[in-house]
Amino acid sequence: MLETNSFRTIGPTTYLSPIPSVLVGCADPENGIRPNLITVAWAGVVCTRPPMVSVSIRKERYSHAIISRTGEFTVNLVGKHLLKAMDFCGVKSGRDVDKFAHLGLTPVAAPGLEHAVGVGEAPAFLSCKVHQIIELGSHDLFIGAVQQVSVADRYFRPDGSINEEAMNLISFVHGKYHAVSEPLGFFGYSVASPRALERRGFGKGKKK
Amino acid sequence: MLETNSFRTIGPTTYLSPIPSVLVGCADPENGIRPNLITVAWAGVVCTRPPMVSVSIRKERYSHAIISRTGEFTVNLVGKHLLKAMDFCGVKSGRDVDKFAHLGLTPVAAPGLEHAVGVGEAPAFLSCKVHQIIELGSHDLFIGAVQQVSVADRYFRPDGSINEEAMNLISFVHGKYHAVSEPLGFFGYSVASPRALERRGFGKGKKK
Repeated sequence: MLETNSFRTIGPTTYLSPIPSVLVGCADPENGIRPNLITVAWAGVVCTRPPMVSVSIRKERYSHAIISRTGEFTVNLVGKHLLKAMDFCGVKSGRDVDKFAHLGLTPVAAPGLEHAVGVGEAPAFLSCKVHQIIELGSHDLFIGAVQQVSVADRYFRPDGSINEEAMNLISFVHGKYHAVSEPLGFFGYSVASPRALERRGFGKGKKK
Repeated sequence: MLETNSFRTIGPTTYLSPIPSVLVGCADPENGIRPNLITVAWAGVVCTRPPMVSVSIRKERYSHAIISRTGEFTVNLVGKHLLKAMDFCGVKSGRDVDKFAHLGLTPVAAPGLEHAVGVGEAPAFLSCKVHQIIELGSHDLFIGAVQQVSVADRYFRPDGSINEEAMNLISFVHGKYHAVSEPLGFFGYSVASPRALERRGFGKGKKK
């Protein structure tokens, strides 16, 4: 039996968690703007068909104008090996520093896009075209239509499936980066047959 | 030195991860609609000031009409103890089953709202009023202005801070629920002084 809590109110805040923390890539070579990266935790999936994601960016951020002008961005997943670089990209501005060069990261062409670049060291990245920009207040919401997804070769298993657990992805909880650890179940496991649980690796004794 | 990957494209999909997986609560007692819950992984923070979150819901879902009509919903954080209940709420419809009753969950009044309810067993929940609904395709994006946040008493430390790590929050990665484990750093840690690192519990030897 689950215990019912009593609650205290803490005021209206952005308390949702865990949330993603990703590197958003952009560039505008036609206007002499080198590839840039911005760290975004206000990000999410917003639609399945067509596949769309959103990232929220403050108007005053350097990347805001680049993405608005080119209509393109990439969303780069972040594993432990990129954590420090990601944090750096959240506190420094591309106006002042060439983040790719400073961090030893490699801008790579993003399939389906003309301008924005992916991060060569990321486990995977999504190529997105801006579908809509919605002004909300401190942040503008960029809704991106996913054009293509690129996954690093090294995460493919011999059978062609992808080993996301090996990516050591990072989650964001109230100002702190956390490791994402062992899988506890899969979508639908609560009503799955013992056979299905076994097949998916969640058979008897493997989870509570 | 970080290694640069080679990539394979897998087509345009909603590959962003990790993402949240939360229980969205609603109710419409004036129209005889009992409290209901829907599991949403297409959720995120979208604005800091005013604080706003978004949840994407298919038009055909039972909760879609309830939230559209009342203009209210709650976003309930989910810890390990609620994982099985959350999964169940993602595969069953409130048209067929009273999810609160079936799962032994307690609908509680949501501060700042008239209709929607929170989950009494959740570690915390956000009370939201619908600010805007944006049609995207398979899903409609509900942008919610956060009215209030309620956190269960048990997660407050004696000094009034909140121990989010004790919530054992759940993250969603490509169809699987994952535990969120140890903190690896905090926002800004890459440029923090040794003293600041020490103060925040990330001093020498505590992280790489």
